[in-house]
Amino acid sequence: MSGSSSGQIFRVTTAGESHGAALVAIVDGCPAGLPLSEADIQPDLDRRKPGQSKYTTQRRESDEVEILSGVFEGVTTGCPIGLLIRNTDQRSKDYSDIMDKFRPGHADFTYYEKYGRRDYRGGGRSSARETAMRVAAGAVAKKLLAESGISVIGWVDQIGPVRADPARFDVNEIANNPFFCPDAEAAAAMATFMDGLRKEGDSIGAAVTVEAHGMIPGLGEPVFDRLDADIAKSLMNIPAVKAVEIGDGFACIEARGSQFGDAMRANGFTSNHAGGILGGISNGDTVRARMALKPTSSILKPRPTVDIHGDETEIITKGRHDPCVGIRAVPIAEAQLALVLADHLLRHRASRV
Amino acid sequence: MSGSSSGQIFRVTTAGESHGAALVAIVDGCPAGLPLSEADIQPDLDRRKPGQSKYTTQRRESDEVEILSGVFEGVTTGCPIGLLIRNTDQRSKDYSDIMDKFRPGHADFTYYEKYGRRDYRGGGRSSARETAMRVAAGAVAKKLLAESGISVIGWVDQIGPVRADPARFDVNEIANNPFFCPDAEAAAAMATFMDGLRKEGDSIGAAVTVEAHGMIPGLGEPVFDRLDADIAKSLMNIPAVKAVEIGDGFACIEARGSQFGDAMRANGFTSNHAGGILGGISNGDTVRARMALKPTSSILKPRPTVDIHGDETEIITKGRHDPCVGIRAVPIAEAQLALVLADHLLRHRASRV
Amino acid sequence: MSGSSSGQIFRVTTAGESHGAALVAIVDGCPAGLPLSEADIQPDLDRRKPGQSKYTTQRRESDEVEILSGVFEGVTTGCPIGLLIRNTDQRSKDYSDIMDKFRPGHADFTYYEKYGRRDYRGGGRSSARETAMRVAAGAVAKKLLAESGISVIGWVDQIGPVRADPARFDVNEIANNPFFCPDAEAAAAMATFMDGLRKEGDSIGAAVTVEAHGMIPGLGEPVFDRLDADIAKSLMNIPAVKAVEIGDGFACIEARGSQFGDAMRANGFTSNHAGGILGGISNGDTVRARMALKPTSSILKPRPTVDIHGDETEIITKGRHDPCVGIRAVPIAEAQLALVLADHLLRHRASRV
Amino acid sequence: MSGSSSGQIFRVTTAGESHGAALVAIVDGCPAGLPLSEADIQPDLDRRKPGQSKYTTQRRESDEVEILSGVFEGVTTGCPIGLLIRNTDQRSKDYSDIMDKFRPGHADFTYYEKYGRRDYRGGGRSSARETAMRVAAGAVAKKLLAESGISVIGWVDQIGPVRADPARFDVNEIANNPFFCPDAEAAAAMATFMDGLRKEGDSIGAAVTVEAHGMIPGLGEPVFDRLDADIAKSLMNIPAVKAVEIGDGFACIEARGSQFGDAMRANGFTSNHAGGILGGISNGDTVRARMALKPTSSILKPRPTVDIHGDETEIITKGRHDPCVGIRAVPIAEAQLALVLADHLLRHRASRV
Repeated sequence: MSGSSSGQIFRVTTAGESHGAALVAIVDGCPAGLPLSEADIQPDLDRRKPGQSKYTTQRRESDEVEILSGVFEGVTTGCPIGLLIRNTDQRSKDYSDIMDKFRPGHADFTYYEKYGRRDYRGGGRSSARETAMRVAAGAVAKKLLAESGISVIGWVDQIGPVRADPARFDVNEIANNPFFCPDAEAAAAMATFMDGLRKEGDSIGAAVTVEAHGMIPGLGEPVFDRLDADIAKSLMNIPAVKAVEIGDGFACIEARGSQFGDAMRANGFTSNHAGGILGGISNGDTVRARMALKPTSSILKPRPTVDIHGDETEIITKGRHDPCVGIRAVPIAEAQLALVLADHLLRHRASRV
Repeated sequence: MSGSSSGQIFRVTTAGESHGAALVAIVDGCPAGLPLSEADIQPDLDRRKPGQSKYTTQRRESDEVEILSGVFEGVTTGCPIGLLIRNTDQRSKDYSDIMDKFRPGHADFTYYEKYGRRDYRGGGRSSARETAMRVAAGAVAKKLLAESGISVIGWVDQIGPVRADPARFDVNEIANNPFFCPDAEAAAAMATFMDGLRKEGDSIGAAVTVEAHGMIPGLGEPVFDRLDADIAKSLMNIPAVKAVEIGDGFACIEARGSQFGDAMRANGFTSNHAGGILGGISNGDTVRARMALKPTSSILKPRPTVDIHGDETEIITKGRHDPCVGIRAVPIAEAQLALVLADHLLRHRASRV
Repeated sequence: MSGSSSGQIFRVTTAGESHGAALVAIVDGCPAGLPLSEADIQPDLDRRKPGQSKYTTQRRESDEVEILSGVFEGVTTGCPIGLLIRNTDQRSKDYSDIMDKFRPGHADFTYYEKYGRRDYRGGGRSSARETAMRVAAGAVAKKLLAESGISVIGWVDQIGPVRADPARFDVNEIANNPFFCPDAEAAAAMATFMDGLRKEGDSIGAAVTVEAHGMIPGLGEPVFDRLDADIAKSLMNIPAVKAVEIGDGFACIEARGSQFGDAMRANGFTSNHAGGILGGISNGDTVRARMALKPTSSILKPRPTVDIHGDETEIITKGRHDPCVGIRAVPIAEAQLALVLADHLLRHRASRV
Repeated sequence: MSGSSSGQIFRVTTAGESHGAALVAIVDGCPAGLPLSEADIQPDLDRRKPGQSKYTTQRRESDEVEILSGVFEGVTTGCPIGLLIRNTDQRSKDYSDIMDKFRPGHADFTYYEKYGRRDYRGGGRSSARETAMRVAAGAVAKKLLAESGISVIGWVDQIGPVRADPARFDVNEIANNPFFCPDAEAAAAMATFMDGLRKEGDSIGAAVTVEAHGMIPGLGEPVFDRLDADIAKSLMNIPAVKAVEIGDGFACIEARGSQFGDAMRANGFTSNHAGGILGGISNGDTVRARMALKPTSSILKPRPTVDIHGDETEIITKGRHDPCVGIRAVPIAEAQLALVLADHLLRHRASRV
């Protein structure tokens, strides 16, 4: 596996799997002079942490981050920032009865095919557990972006059939319910829906939107590292994500050029169908991306599958799983967007003589 | 601009703009021993070429590719492959009246903001003209994939409101109509729709699907270079693309885990909601991706905009433009998918001791 | 700082400074299926460890490595390998009186100029302390190379005026003396020389040779990632190294083509002036590189310098320092060579269709 | 072959072999706003060009460079710069009698082992012919460096036994003799020496020094992309180079710390043993590097070798070859140094918040 890094200048490399000793990240390329401490990182980790409500997995992980290097007297030195989170609540025995079976919808089969073996404990590296480190690194990126006035925010806008109504959008509501939902009414409906789902032992998909506010124009490196392309890659790298759209996204298929191209006036764009990106470069308007997450593959219902010998069998995934992985994906999506923006912010510095 | 390369091992770097002297690409990392000549590349270039029907731009570009290096006695040597296409039909005067204005929906404004200047001739580097080189490089990738039995195919499945019906899908029909549409009936409706659109001087969005057949399991490098993430980036890097989905994509939001996770039997998967990718690694099933392209921003209708001095004005984009950029995007999308797969095919060789 | 990674496929990223909490490394791209445990890594760390003899710094660091991830049931999984070493013996007070002064020959001034600040505790990131992580990562690379029959070995061949005599070369002697010297007689002379030097409070330069045995032909990627070029970079990246030569190196200046080009016979090359590399690609013969290390910059003699305000002053570097940094550089040089070879071994897999 | 690129931000990718259709380069990441035309590049190509004196190969190559893209109205646009040089004087027949034999000291054997085939025409990609493109790209880098007041200069300081005397160093003399030698007296001795050598049909090694003047402190990215390490790699990537030293280089082995560490005074360093680099970062003083080039492997004397079937045979390399490849290496070394500095100049922009 050689794909454990992200970014060109602001570059993050992670390691660690679900039931290993620890998760670790190295944030390389963070400029010197940024005030930074664990207190800047822990809040986002806590938002992602499991066990926060009855709607997410009941695993208990303290997810306490330690800064190992790169910070001296409370300020980044320009040297690589090492981050460590010890794994604590690992019940490996939960997986012993499925060690030879491939769980449908999971990466068990593909890891086995690729590497000739598999860490069956909690999905190993393919577990969403590893995203804790992206959230930690993303918090550093957010801190850097803040120096340029850029902030990142995300929310759940749909869980299964329940959609947040844009007319009821309230940014302050996002932290008020266990669904990261900006619409209080929809959040209530989500609770009802999720209660029913849990009784069935099933899981459900979701949609998450992330935005960057206070953007500056010029970020993005055509033609192969466009800002929208790097965002698409970054969000699609989140476990369970199956689709990404920028701005109006798929709605553009039926749109006409006379409406879709955002007109410009002296005080800015008159609309933002583009999602803040033109020709792969930010235009200064709000960057907006949306992603779809598939339903959790680990469910309590029995599913047909095969084992590592190719024999047909059945599987029930016990253990403690999120019935909707989309919920905890909000801080992850924010982190991924922040990492892309931080990298392009630094790359942009080389644009002109 | 530092983003002109794609791929880690099978690595393509391109240069060239709409009205410059030539387009050029260097395909680095192509293994030695692959039979290759211009005849392997030209057909895909011809499929992308403008002026093939009344539904695409009437610019005439010969788009003749020359292999400059890396091939000896008809076979790749392992050395980098240089590819050259001279620009021929450049009517720079078409743009002289808009050199100070920003065309809505175009990259004019963002390039100007990023670089402090702008090549106003035909969009410069932001023109879809540069994609000719991706198609050329992609043809080399296709040749390499064929050695492993992998083939790539794409088609238009929607233009504005007109959708191809999966029930009428006929792979042989794709090359039979000017829309790369696999459904003859839909193609006829597209023709009618496009005729009306052209009279209005407007443009329309589209959707394109690409698939890879004959896949092998194991391609993709979690967690930051997942196969689906690299495909998403690759397709989003195509001009005008605003959304990408893998497999069932956005439909997963309302799906349940009990249905969505593709079950396994001794003879393979019983469905392919995943689009051939699990945990970022190919599972051997057909890889399927779909992308949405926005309507062409260059239209004959007047649009409000500003000029480089910030003054409000109006613009009409004359010149010869595609009313639906999605149509010619099919060979581009195939090329981009082929480039990603070729790169991961080679990276995969390092997976096991 | 964005240069904390090395290698393209077998890629190592490190973090950590002299007096921070810990050193950490992520070894990405190590193939699955390699037996690996801390016991494979610790011996090389122990060879590099300070305080092993009176000829090296008397700092006491346990340098115990912990594998955090990427290994399951004693075998690599293909996932990134996290490595951790806690810093223990940090006497930061030793540096308090020099926090505003630039030590001649050290990186104090350049770090301050680059980052606008400086971690004055023991040189921070510029301390050779960080090389512990290279040694740890290099041990993983050595294990991988061994699978292909390649082994790496290094030794000190000169300390100041005292040279090892090739005629007395005994590979078993290297571990028998505190100088990593393959010539017992020279080792005795080195001891005498070093005793005198220490009394003067001065330091001395050294030369180290590293070789790779059991090589296979074909490693190296012309024209910009030649094997010799990557070795040169790798060795020059070691603190205090000022020169690198491959094979006969500088002696080639006065050589003639009729002698220098190694002739080939049916059973191999008749000489190895080239040091096992032709055209940037290994030829299967022993790879041989040699490097020169400058004398330790931290000495007990007073030196003229300036402080961060630009005022002239004088400095004495107390603390516990190696009088000859070349001695402990042997395991570091072996590690760096191993890392380069491991990376090229994997890259080479993509050379042919 | 996947190593055809150099640099992280200011990134050069080249293609082309000795007897192919053309050489091509793409210079990606050059900032917008740099005045540039072919006239900035051609002079350096002319300095490298063969056939300039009786002491270099008598091949006649016009080496005329064409800028294909990235420049508009005489100024760089920020888009990748395509460069093209057509090959003209190719006498492929000169090589037909050696197509099955491996020339000692050449890359014939290693390319054959690596790629399973070989372009026997003039060494193919392993020919120094490809360095023309580095010189072209390097000229762009020099132009960029000049904006920051940095200039690069190189010279031959030794050919076989004949050394330039530093006491007679005259920068204006370098262009006055066919040896790029700054010492007129040594140049005369070189002429005599080379005349004798040519009669013998033999070849000789050489040493070249390059310097960067007007440096600024702060360039270089520890710990794996140190400035000295990148310079070492860059110079070692030049065909025939076997050794590289920075500053006093190998002389440091016998030096003492009390002398070697360059002391600082209010007006700067009192010496420059370090060659302008401390801890891998430039200190603002002149950067100085020196490299050794082996004697040309193509000589008129018969040498023992084997053919591709492993059978022993003899070979005489006819054709038109440089008796001392070091001579024409001066503009190449300048280019390589300029490329490294330009890249680090841009990377440095991300060092501080």
